[in-house]
Amino acid sequence: MTLPPEGHPRYKSLIAREKLVEATDVVAKQGLIAHGRGEAFDYLLGEQTCPPAIRSIKAAASLIRVASSPVISVNGNVVALAAKEVAHLSEASGAKVEVNLFHRTSERVAGLTKMMDEVGIQALGMNPDDKIPGLSSERARCCSEGIGSADVVLVPLEDGDRCQALVEMGKQVITIDLNPLSRTAQTAHITIVDELTRCLPLLTDAIRDGVKVDDFDNKKNLKEVLAFICARLS
Amino acid sequence: MTLPPEGHPRYKSLIAREKLVEATDVVAKQGLIAHGRGEAFDYLLGEQTCPPAIRSIKAAASLIRVASSPVISVNGNVVALAAKEVAHLSEASGAKVEVNLFHRTSERVAGLTKMMDEVGIQALGMNPDDKIPGLSSERARCCSEGIGSADVVLVPLEDGDRCQALVEMGKQVITIDLNPLSRTAQTAHITIVDELTRCLPLLTDAIRDGVKVDDFDNKKNLKEVLAFICARLS
Repeated sequence: MTLPPEGHPRYKSLIAREKLVEATDVVAKQGLIAHGRGEAFDYLLGEQTCPPAIRSIKAAASLIRVASSPVISVNGNVVALAAKEVAHLSEASGAKVEVNLFHRTSERVAGLTKMMDEVGIQALGMNPDDKIPGLSSERARCCSEGIGSADVVLVPLEDGDRCQALVEMGKQVITIDLNPLSRTAQTAHITIVDELTRCLPLLTDAIRDGVKVDDFDNKKNLKEVLAFICARLS
Repeated sequence: MTLPPEGHPRYKSLIAREKLVEATDVVAKQGLIAHGRGEAFDYLLGEQTCPPAIRSIKAAASLIRVASSPVISVNGNVVALAAKEVAHLSEASGAKVEVNLFHRTSERVAGLTKMMDEVGIQALGMNPDDKIPGLSSERARCCSEGIGSADVVLVPLEDGDRCQALVEMGKQVITIDLNPLSRTAQTAHITIVDELTRCLPLLTDAIRDGVKVDDFDNKKNLKEVLAFICARLS
């Protein structure tokens, strides 16, 4: 890994980038481009957790706390960037972890399952026996004891079609997406517009703290994120 | 290449992404991430050439027209995305083309030179005999008959350090960068905030049309781009 100088103002962002570049056996090339899109939006946010993101993190914690079968769906980018943070969230919330890939190959699923194993999490995904309706073959595959039977699914860095398909299955969907305008961000029930490794520990803490939120309007929250970005631009 | 459906609202953007994913023998992995950042900003611009970009294209055409030794500096992303458009610009302007890489290997320079050759351009870059002061060894290398002796350099999709180094050499620097806030965008004399394959033909046409601009303020122009983005966000 090419390390940036420690005092670099964008040190964390550069480390995340190098992590992904190093992990290209399990990260799809399209995943690198997607990461770049996220970097740009994070740049506009000032690489900080904005106030509307804090509110959506609390709402997400509240929803995960009352879920009966919560599942964290992870892909190559999520595991490469935040395997440990996902493990902590899984431990705090009791949520299962399932490897679920847009560009699925059994090698990539095996590699990612192994990476989760190394941080103490036995992730589902190797033996998909269920389907998400409305998606084309490989993209539809999931596990009946994971996403198939989940009531609440956290899908960080998810594709718009798959987010939509999960919503149509009647699941409560929480996403983490730096682009407040993306279809995923607009479709999920709760959208956390924040960088993954920054917001996962906050979500874990909020669950541990027993945070309870009664009222949350995702559309309104997303508008507040756009207003935050605009205020920074001008 | 995985082709998106032709009616897809973001067809051009998806084709560009696939072009880069396919070309990873000459495109650096970091180049994929950089492309993603560009995609995000282009998304915010509405994937169109905004009015301030039109003005900077005209200013760039005017500057290239009066240059005595203009050079177009190209990297992996530029060639993979826009080899033909660069060739047309070179023909219209008389500017030489030099392959100049941040992540330089002789294999990548050779591959990119060959790709330019296939569109009829004999690009410099294989035998660097000069240096850009202030950059670390491999990144400094350039050709004396190209960038070394150029008075005007067009550096699309360039790194901030290298853009700064060219400015410090006393060259007039034009960049094409979708991020109006990037160091490259802020450092160049003329910044075209537009997608590469969209603006290069406009630049070529403006040169052919003999466009002349007497007055251009890059900082002001960049502020107008930010205002354009903000107006779209809200």
